[in-house]
Amino acid sequence: MDKQLLLSSTRNVLIRLEETIIFGLIERAQFALNKVIYEKGAFGSELSGESLVGYLLHETEKIHARMRRYTSPDEHPFFADLPVPLLPALVFSESPLQPNAVNINAEIRAVYEQQIVPLICAPGDDGQYGSSSVSDVMLLQAISKRVHYGKFVAESKYRDREAVLKPLMKNMDREDLARTITDEAVEAQVLERVRLKAQTYGQQLGGGQTDFRVTPDIVQRIYADWIIPLNKKVQVEYLLQRNP
Amino acid sequence: MDKQLLLSSTRNVLIRLEETIIFGLIERAQFALNKVIYEKGAFGSELSGESLVGYLLHETEKIHARMRRYTSPDEHPFFADLPVPLLPALVFSESPLQPNAVNINAEIRAVYEQQIVPLICAPGDDGQYGSSSVSDVMLLQAISKRVHYGKFVAESKYRDREAVLKPLMKNMDREDLARTITDEAVEAQVLERVRLKAQTYGQQLGGGQTDFRVTPDIVQRIYADWIIPLNKKVQVEYLLQRNP
Repeated sequence: MDKQLLLSSTRNVLIRLEETIIFGLIERAQFALNKVIYEKGAFGSELSGESLVGYLLHETEKIHARMRRYTSPDEHPFFADLPVPLLPALVFSESPLQPNAVNINAEIRAVYEQQIVPLICAPGDDGQYGSSSVSDVMLLQAISKRVHYGKFVAESKYRDREAVLKPLMKNMDREDLARTITDEAVEAQVLERVRLKAQTYGQQLGGGQTDFRVTPDIVQRIYADWIIPLNKKVQVEYLLQRNP
Repeated sequence: MDKQLLLSSTRNVLIRLEETIIFGLIERAQFALNKVIYEKGAFGSELSGESLVGYLLHETEKIHARMRRYTSPDEHPFFADLPVPLLPALVFSESPLQPNAVNINAEIRAVYEQQIVPLICAPGDDGQYGSSSVSDVMLLQAISKRVHYGKFVAESKYRDREAVLKPLMKNMDREDLARTITDEAVEAQVLERVRLKAQTYGQQLGGGQTDFRVTPDIVQRIYADWIIPLNKKVQVEYLLQRNP
């Protein structure tokens, strides 16, 4: 894949995922916090010690693994013990990425459950455990994909600025690397765009009784405080594992 | 549950599901038709003779059944052979419905796969089988919930107009019943509202390369041609099974 193609296809995926994430946040915010669904063991020993959300996420990943989801270079599982694919391997167009083992889903899950959900959901418990968990799994998967797309972003930056990045990679200097790959103009653009999308999609049309929590401010904050920094972390880790 | 409460809670759920369905249509339309995912046996014998979408739907229902999804009066599975819940039964607030066995998911699945998907997706095959199937399962579940909510609508109408409906129910006259429960003003309102929502949510913000198929016209047509008529069918069948 050539440099321009990599850049434009990466950009398209990132923009498309903004809709998925904002729609997902709006879906989840229809239900209360329901914190019991994040507590390990809260539903007894039947869920192998996991929380309800963890159990659903694990079971969902088992099915998706059988459908070979995690053979794709842009998919990263939250669990390690997954079954082998039932389907014959897809022939992916050759991945532009170098082999790497970067996966920060544990951190993504912690941020999501401890920071993002309490921000968008009304406090309390409405008993909608199933619907809330289904929505959580969908959002965790979308956010994971968005964050790990940092690998494609980093690869694209590497090809563009190899001479600048190589010495930083050799020095293993995370802070220096993070500073160098930061493009403040692009970040400002992303934040502006997600604010506009949240404004548009978050309109309450034709009634409905919820007090609405997925405001443009909140969506912008979720991107500024977590999605963009975690994406940057993936970029740095990918570059550190990349063969220069 | 009293008559007014039933009516307003039913109305709120139906309005909320409009967002879920429209967001789902937009998600699915990001991928091509990929008709091979609807063909039974297309992926070999590993999927117990099901199509890829059918396999994912079945496996998803097995997990959700273990999480007791189908013990709720507003949830209807597509498959009959599901495991028993792992979780202790939830105490649902008493269902306002009379016992009944109405489930038209087979028809919903056929309409969805044969009519709706070809309408919203670009023709052809983009290889995104996993993402397309995940999106299909989510939409099938949302449309099924919307359509089967006809039971609550019908119960509410019965309580309101018992004297008028009882004789029609005794005569088992489907056409007469359908005519009598039709409220054209409400239907026009729904169609107008989903058109407005599709217009708002369907805006392409900040670029992206798709040719956009989930237009206000298409969403309105999906409601007018399939969702509303199927919902009405559920209302009629529910009344025919209801103990007058």
